[in-house]
Amino acid sequence: MKISARNVLKGKIVEVTKGATTSHVRIDVGGTIVTASITNEAVEDLGLVKGMSASAVIKSSDVMIAVD
Amino acid sequence: MKISARNVLKGKIVEVTKGATTSHVRIDVGGTIVTASITNEAVEDLGLVKGMSASAVIKSSDVMIAVD
Amino acid sequence: MKISARNVLKGKIVEVTKGATTSHVRIDVGGTIVTASITNEAVEDLGLVKGMSASAVIKSSDVMIAVD
Amino acid sequence: MKISARNVLKGKIVEVTKGATTSHVRIDVGGTIVTASITNEAVEDLGLVKGMSASAVIKSSDVMIAVD
Amino acid sequence: MKISARNVLKGKIVEVTKGATTSHVRIDVGGTIVTASITNEAVEDLGLVKGMSASAVIKSSDVMIAVD
Amino acid sequence: MKISARNVLKGKIVEVTKGATTSHVRIDVGGTIVTASITNEAVEDLGLVKGMSASAVIKSSDVMIAVD
Repeated sequence: MKISARNVLKGKIVEVTKGATTSHVRIDVGGTIVTASITNEAVEDLGLVKGMSASAVIKSSDVMIAVD
Repeated sequence: MKISARNVLKGKIVEVTKGATTSHVRIDVGGTIVTASITNEAVEDLGLVKGMSASAVIKSSDVMIAVD
Repeated sequence: MKISARNVLKGKIVEVTKGATTSHVRIDVGGTIVTASITNEAVEDLGLVKGMSASAVIKSSDVMIAVD
Repeated sequence: MKISARNVLKGKIVEVTKGATTSHVRIDVGGTIVTASITNEAVEDLGLVKGMSASAVIKSSDVMIAVD
Repeated sequence: MKISARNVLKGKIVEVTKGATTSHVRIDVGGTIVTASITNEAVEDLGLVKGMSASAVIKSSDVMIAVD
Repeated sequence: MKISARNVLKGKIVEVTKGATTSHVRIDVGGTIVTASITNEAVEDLGLVKGMSASAVIKSSDVMIAVD
């Protein structure tokens, strides 16, 4: 599958925290930690666990720019 | 200003493409290019130009996870 | 690639409208038309054209519920 | 109320799963299951229960396109 | 129609700017201007023009919090 | 920090409800209550509590328009 989302950041899962319905998955992308808030169901379906290679995928319209 | 968005990725702007109302801003974040689709108005208000230091800001609920 | 987004709706592209930076892609998903607003760059990268099989992908946190 | 969101998919609720603050609502839209992640408060306010007619509402800028 | 989105801010349209595919609609909500980036098609379908009463609708998962 | 998001609505926090992983923060913006669904981690990191001054920040592409 190839997706229209312009941002696919490759990394490794460093933490999976499950909540009642929502999980937080943290990925190390070249030394930067990216946090994803996804459904528990997705975590189970993809078998996401610490140490696994995975990508953070982000649609361009969900990216903001900040300056100091 | 400090923001609740968990993902603030520091980098440098490598390209600003203006459309009729929507601009695409590309930031180099440690060698990875992140694309943001934002309003022309924001580009002007923040004075975004190529070469400028800037961060890509992404809310955790807008990050998906993909595996091969 | 397998993605955490829970909604992957298979269909066929019925229209691609390019703007200055943003395109609108319409997919027929079992008789219902789904509209996606994506970057021109994604349209070119994926080679999206009318008649092509494609899926609409939507993260669960981007779906609202309405009742009459 | 008429909304700017281009995607209003009519269906029937097949499952409501409540979490601590976030619920998952699944709607059968012409044989395809669409999952929405919304607040518990919205579930209560709209009285969402299994078997009820409801629509999945999605803004076009939240729809991605994937191809095989 | 009643929607799960928790934020429905009533106001009056003060500006509609059309782009090639994307429009910017500005609403005065009790003295604060709220900007919406929506499709041209939605602007036409809802007949949005300056001076019209309208609401800004925002899903809770799309709201961030900032502090000084 | 200055952000590209066009909507920064100043107000005061009136409620913080923590879930297993996701919190709901309600801000009074000039008499209108705005609800944000953010991570527990963000609530702790920013020290968000009732009575505190804070802003609701919303990207324009996440704002829809509704008319009666």
